Formats: sequence, C-alpha cells, structure tokens
Amino acid sequence: MMPREIGVTELALRDAHQSLMATRMAIEDMIPVCEQIDRAGFWSVECWGGATFDTCIRFLNEDPWERLRTFRKLMPNSRLQMLLRGQNLLGYRHYQDEVVERFVAKAAENGMDVFRVFDALNDPRNLEHAMNAVTKVGKHAQGTICYTVSPLHNTEGYVQLAGRLLDMGAQSIALKDMAALLKPQPAYDIVKGIKDTYGADTQVNVHCHATTGVTLVSLMKAIEAGADVVDTAVSSMSLGPGHNPTESLVEMLEGTGFTTGVDLATLLPVRDHFAKVRPKYSAFESKITTVDTNIFKSQIPGGMISNMESQLKNQGAGDRIEEVMEEVPRVREDAGFPPLVTPSSQIVGTQAVFNVLMGRYKVLTGEFADLMLGYYGECPGVRNAEVVELAKKQTKKEPITVRPADLLDPEWDHLRAEAAGLEGFDGSDEDVLTVAMFPSVAPGFFKTRAEGPKNVGKTAEQVAKEAAIASGAANAVREPIKYTVTIGDHAHNVSVEPA
Amino acid sequence: MMPREIGVTELALRDAHQSLMATRMAIEDMIPVCEQIDRAGFWSVECWGGATFDTCIRFLNEDPWERLRTFRKLMPNSRLQMLLRGQNLLGYRHYQDEVVERFVAKAAENGMDVFRVFDALNDPRNLEHAMNAVTKVGKHAQGTICYTVSPLHNTEGYVQLAGRLLDMGAQSIALKDMAALLKPQPAYDIVKGIKDTYGADTQVNVHCHATTGVTLVSLMKAIEAGADVVDTAVSSMSLGPGHNPTESLVEMLEGTGFTTGVDLATLLPVRDHFAKVRPKYSAFESKITTVDTNIFKSQIPGGMISNMESQLKNQGAGDRIEEVMEEVPRVREDAGFPPLVTPSSQIVGTQAVFNVLMGRYKVLTGEFADLMLGYYGECPGVRNAEVVELAKKQTKKEPITVRPADLLDPEWDHLRAEAAGLEGFDGSDEDVLTVAMFPSVAPGFFKTRAEGPKNVGKTAEQVAKEAAIASGAANAVREPIKYTVTIGDHAHNVSVEPA
Repeated sequence: MMPREIGVTELALRDAHQSLMATRMAIEDMIPVCEQIDRAGFWSVECWGGATFDTCIRFLNEDPWERLRTFRKLMPNSRLQMLLRGQNLLGYRHYQDEVVERFVAKAAENGMDVFRVFDALNDPRNLEHAMNAVTKVGKHAQGTICYTVSPLHNTEGYVQLAGRLLDMGAQSIALKDMAALLKPQPAYDIVKGIKDTYGADTQVNVHCHATTGVTLVSLMKAIEAGADVVDTAVSSMSLGPGHNPTESLVEMLEGTGFTTGVDLATLLPVRDHFAKVRPKYSAFESKITTVDTNIFKSQIPGGMISNMESQLKNQGAGDRIEEVMEEVPRVREDAGFPPLVTPSSQIVGTQAVFNVLMGRYKVLTGEFADLMLGYYGECPGVRNAEVVELAKKQTKKEPITVRPADLLDPEWDHLRAEAAGLEGFDGSDEDVLTVAMFPSVAPGFFKTRAEGPKNVGKTAEQVAKEAAIASGAANAVREPIKYTVTIGDHAHNVSVEPA
Repeated sequence: MMPREIGVTELALRDAHQSLMATRMAIEDMIPVCEQIDRAGFWSVECWGGATFDTCIRFLNEDPWERLRTFRKLMPNSRLQMLLRGQNLLGYRHYQDEVVERFVAKAAENGMDVFRVFDALNDPRNLEHAMNAVTKVGKHAQGTICYTVSPLHNTEGYVQLAGRLLDMGAQSIALKDMAALLKPQPAYDIVKGIKDTYGADTQVNVHCHATTGVTLVSLMKAIEAGADVVDTAVSSMSLGPGHNPTESLVEMLEGTGFTTGVDLATLLPVRDHFAKVRPKYSAFESKITTVDTNIFKSQIPGGMISNMESQLKNQGAGDRIEEVMEEVPRVREDAGFPPLVTPSSQIVGTQAVFNVLMGRYKVLTGEFADLMLGYYGECPGVRNAEVVELAKKQTKKEPITVRPADLLDPEWDHLRAEAAGLEGFDGSDEDVLTVAMFPSVAPGFFKTRAEGPKNVGKTAEQVAKEAAIASGAANAVREPIKYTVTIGDHAHNVSVEPA
C-alpha cells in the first residue's frame, strides 16, 4: 500500500523567528536560502503575519510589502502563507469591512496564497468577512480554531466550530496550538471528529508550538487521525518556545503508513545557514532552553508571564507574580473563558496585574472593559454580570451582541487622507494599509524608508568576539585601550595593550 | 476502564549528566534532591554505571562505592538501577567469571537493585554470566538489546535476541537506543514482537536518547505496543544529546489509555534544583542545542564524530572528517555490522581514521584486530576474510569462536595482590574491584581519596560573573584590576576599581 502523503508547512520565515528571536530576523538573512526552501517540497511556506509586519516597520526599516514581493519572486513554486487576525487584520482593533477586503486583495496581488484566518476569542463572526474576501480573490481561505483548555472547551465544541467555519466558506481548517497545550489524545480526537463529521476530504492543518515537549507526539496522533498538513520549522530554527523540527517530523514517519514530500537533502543547506545566522540574534532569544510543562497547570503561556512580570517590576511589585498567576484564571473565568492568545492574553494578564496591585476590579483597563462589553466579540462562557456592570459604569458604554465591526463606519477615505498627509507616503494602497495597521509607527517608517532595511543582529565579528568571551578569555586585554587618567592635576593620555 | 500504568526510570543521576555534561556532576549537587526523587514514584532510579564510576575516581576524587551507599541511604524506597557492560563490567576488557560474580555481589550488597546488562556487539554469551550472577544474589537481571540499524538488523532478529536473553534468565528486556536511532514504527514493531512471541507479561523497558528529536514519539508507540517501563530525565536535565523530559512523558499520556505513577508536584523542586546546578557544568556541555538528524544518515553518533575529529586534528588532518565519515560504514561492514556503542564505536571510528590517514588497513589498531578475530565476541554479519587475515598476520593471534571470557584464567587473587601493593588501598573487595576496573586510574585515586570529593563545576560566583558577561556588561570594571602603566619614563603601579 502506498503511504499517505502528509503536507508540511515550513515556519522558519515567520513563526519560528517570531517565537525564538522576537521576529527580528532581517530579510538579508533569509534571502540566501529562499531558493532551497522553494525546492524542498513543502505544502506551504509561512512568511508573513502581524508581528513580522510590525517588526519590519518598527525595528528593521523594511517595507513589509516589499518583503512579500521578494518572497514571491524567490519562491515561485511555493504556496506562500500568512497568519491573519480576522477582522483585526494585522493590527489590534477591528477594521471596517472595506479595509479588510482591500487588505486581502493587496496581499493576494503581492503574492500571498494561503490566508490562515483566526480570532483570539474563536468568534466565527470575526473570521467570516476576511475568509470571504480571500475566496473572492481566488486564494485559499483557512479557518482557524485556537486551541485552549478550560471547563467549557471540549472536542465536541471544537468540531462544531470547525463546522461553522466550513459553512462560512473555509477551504481548510487549521487547529492552532499557540501555547503548546495540545496533548496527543485531544489532537487525535479533534482531528478525527472533524474528519468523521464533515468528511475525510476536509483538509485539516495542525499547528503546534514545542514549548511543553509533547507536541511532536500530538502531530503523530493528529496524522493518524487524518490530518493533512502539519507545521514545523527547520531544526536549526526549532524547539524551545518555537516548533518541532521539520527533519524530525520527516524521519519520524519512516516505515509508518505516512510520508512527506519534503526532501531533506535540499533542506540541509537551509539548516546550516540558519545555524550560522541564529547566534546573531542571541540578544532576542527566549530563556526557555529545554521545555516548560508548567504551562499545562497554569494555562499561562510563557510570553504572557514575562509580560506580567515586567509590568509588576515597573510598579515595584516584582515579588507578587505568584498572586497574579493565581488571579489570571479567575479573570479569565469572569471574561467567559477566552483562549489566551494575542490580544486576549495581554488583556486578561494586565487586568490580573491591576487586580493584584489595586484590589479586584477597582480599576478596569479600557481593553478589559471592552472585552467584558462584547467589543471584541463573543466568548464561550457567560461573563460575570457584576464585572459587566462595572465596565458599563466606568466606560459609559453599553454591552453589544452584534459583530463588533458592524458598528464601524466606512473608513477607507479617511485612512487614505491620513496617509496622504505623511512625509514619505508613496501614494499606494499598500502604504494606506500600513498606516491603517500601525498608525503610530508608520509615519516614522515612511520618513526613513529610503535608507533601506537594517539588520539588528550582531555582526559576524561581534558573534566571534562573544564566543571568545564565553570560552573564558574574557578578562584578557586583546587590543589597545585608550584611557584618560588624571593623577593629581595632570591628565594623561594612556594606552594599555598586551605586553 | 482503568488506564494501564507505565513505569518510569529517572535518568538524571546517571545517563543524563553523562550525556549532557560528560558525567561530571558532583555528589553534593545530587544529594539535595535524592529524597524528592525517592518520593516521586519512579519504577527505578538509574544512578551508576561505567562512566560514573570512571569519572568519580578520575576527576572527582570520590569513591564510587561510597556514592552508591549514599544513594541507597537517601533513596530507601526506590529501585536503584545500574548499567553493566556484561562481561566487561564497568571496564574495557573481558573479566574472568569469578570477577564478574564478585562485582555483582558487591554492587548488590552496597545497594543496587536492577542491573541492566548489555554487550556492545549484542553477543548474548557476553551477558549470560553477569545476568546469572545478578539472579543468584536475588536482584533484577535486565537483558539488553542495543538498537542499531544495518542491512542485517531487523525486527525479527531483535525479537529472537530477546528470546535468547529470556532463556538465559533475563527478568526483563531493555531496548536500548543509545544513538536516538529508534523511530516510532520499529519501536512499535519490536516491542509488539517481543510481547506477541514471549507473552504479554514479559517486561519490556525502553531507553531512548533524544538527539534526533523523534524518540518521544517512539516511546509513545512503544507504550501502545505494550512497553512496561520507559526512561526519561527531569526536564532541566533533558534533551540535546540527553533524553526526553520526564514531565513531558507524564503529560503526554493524559487522556490516553495509559498513565504513570510519577507525581509531578514532587518532581518540581528536583527540576528547579538541576536548573540551578546545570550552568555550573557548562564547560562540559555538548554543542547540540536543538536536534541532529544527520545521525540517521551517517549512523554515526555525535560523541563518536567529536572523538574522530579530535584524532584527526592531532594528526594535522582536521579537514579530512568527511572522508572518515564515508569510511566508517565500510569498516563497520568489514567487521560484520556491530552496533556502534562503547567500545565498538571507538574501535571502528579509530580504524576508520587510520584507514584515511595511512591507507586502508595498512595499519590495524590492536583493538580492531581483536574485534576482527572474535576477541570481543560475535557480530551479526560475516567478517571480511581479507581483513581477518591481516589481523592474524599483524597480531600473530588466531581467530576464536568461543566466548572470549572462556579463555581467561582465574584472576581474582592476582587482582587482590595488585591492589594490596597500592598506597591507600583499604583492604576491601570493593577496592580490589576498583583496581580491576580502572587499573591505571585507581592508584592515583587511592592516594588522594582521604581529601574527599571534589566539585569540578563552577562556583555560584563564577556562574553569576559569566552570566553578567554574557548579558553584555563585559566591559565594565567590577573589581580592582592592577596594571603597570608606563608614562614617559616612569612605570606606575595602578589599581583601577569602581568608585
């Protein structure tokens, strides 16, 4: 019997460097291996999303649209894939439908093929318009389930959600496990449930992080249950808070009833290239070097903890993290058990910090109040009525039950006018969309764009020097160091070097 | 239905620090967590073996027998487990049967419960006497299959080997995957084959390294096939060239038909303790930080490659590693496809280096000649007759087909006499056995033993200082630094320190 071929989505160019090095990788460190990636036989190559867009204009002085066109040119045979926050697109607010349509059309025009559309609350109404826009331009609309664990989340609910997304026109379903919480048995059950309910030809993609150490097993069980495509990253860009290694996935399937189309020999230079590049970005690396299984207990992803810790430290309360950790599940329950993923993780986490520092719900953040009032969409659970009352009182806003974007007025002309007033605006719809996504960052970027992309990683010389320091030669003076030394009244120019 | 309980062997105290930090962990860094480990619910605690014994007397000035007694005292409720190289015991040659018996009896008397007995060539005759000795003193004799991949190794052969070990009195079977080559499907097939052939109540333990990234999946499939006990290491002592994380194994089984008796809350302080201890030994850490899947292709374990590289460098031929890598499979085939594990990996690797540097089989190492002549036991394949002839000619020895230890004369009295002549010998059989295992190292150790154990790790202060350097504060002056500064004709003694 021929083994069934499992597709693989390579994450190195988006989620891998986002998870491992705060999304800082420069385009010049990706270009040398794009041709190899293009030939390796992946189902798709993930290469664009909210954080990459943001980092491009905030830190790398690089036009994210130009990055997309570069990928398109260098990987002509690959499906390019992006992560899209539904009605939020790549930003942090809801956009009016016309903006969503224009964004999707422009992304497609510049080269995007597969749009993985998700919503932090798993509210399907926040995905529908974006998925329709993708279908309208003839591209692949992937409806996403954000996997989380709560008393209200179960296999049946996830399978139902998949059905709603399919009804809305999703061409495939992604099971997205952003916190590495998906254990093998639920991975099997959910994929099997979707296949059994909606037909074996329903395409299911599975995305897991590796942080807890169990998720390569989850991918195996998902494949046994019928998953069609799984996400991994080339080994030199894998593990820790990142993803499972592509090579390990390919090798793991040998002799089973499954195989991949990935050619490991083609991937070898990609692995070696990123192994050389990675130390350049060590300053941005996470501290998780093995695995962290505490996440299963706390349900709080690593990135959220470090965020709350820094908030506490800024308030001189760095010792109260344990209290906050205990407060998070309560706040999450009051909010109706949202999944904890951008932006809901920040909203819940910050409110938990406020509760500990100032007393429970003495002060609501604006975002948390909006969450309680339905302005981000619907959560699976019933919200705590008392806290909803507090939110009404504080914000003078009424709770809503409609799709949040339905309350928005047309805004495209306004956005174009805003962009037109900016120095360095090039007149394109792409630039208008950049302003729409990141209105506070775009103006500065437009001004400096002509200087071209920056590399915020270390140079090869710096990497070599740090390696030497790490290997113990740290205290030696290796080159002339000049001091001005004042003894008594006399200033001396002094040079010190190895004798 | 009640889930089936899977036993877990915790490796932190032996193979984990052997694989991650060259076996250098001092007993004082283990003692603080022994009580917690004892209470965590492991099937056994691996804590002793050839490399730990060797390192104790070679680098740590610590009596390995005293270390065993310490473990016994601190972990009264646990099965203590060791790895025993069959007729080689903990050394590198074959010992006469009486020495094997005395060693096993003394190990049992000092507290050992489970003896995992293996032979590098999988020659059952090299395991039989040691297993009998274990059974005779009422302890658990575990017969071991070293897993490797070659044209001659297959599931059927491994299942047959298990049968021979069971016939010889093995109380359980260990499937030992020292190079992380065991993929999920063969893991399933071999365990299933053993269970189907010899009965479901045949205890099967599975030991995998994590180097290639696939073996937690292999453990899952082994468990599905009926494996009874699997080996892992607490997460802060896991991954890289080490093993899969204990916590991940426990969590992975949730919701499946399997569970473990391990209590993760009890294990938490163990994890945190080793997370603090590990940086002390960073100088001994391997460079593998993610995974290495090249091993699948080359069949050459990482430790063997670095060994060959250093041999080549010493000969000024550091650039010829690729040639040696290509030579290794040929040498292995000529030798009849031995598994590559201590000592066969060193013997084959060194001969491959000789072949590249001096011409193929121009010079045979003494050990390789012995391997070709049967002095290590039988290999699965037919040895290259021409090379056997060369070995005969060079060594003036005849090939043998008997069990190597059958050629040995009684040696206990001689070993005792040798030990008695050494300064610091304490008269015990344990000391005689130490001399027998490591005759060139024991004399020096006996002389300095009274000074007590050493810690070769860094101090807490050194770790803190290096962390500071790594975090970029390297150029700051933090303590008085003395310079001789010459200005004009005058030399000044200058001390610089923070004001």
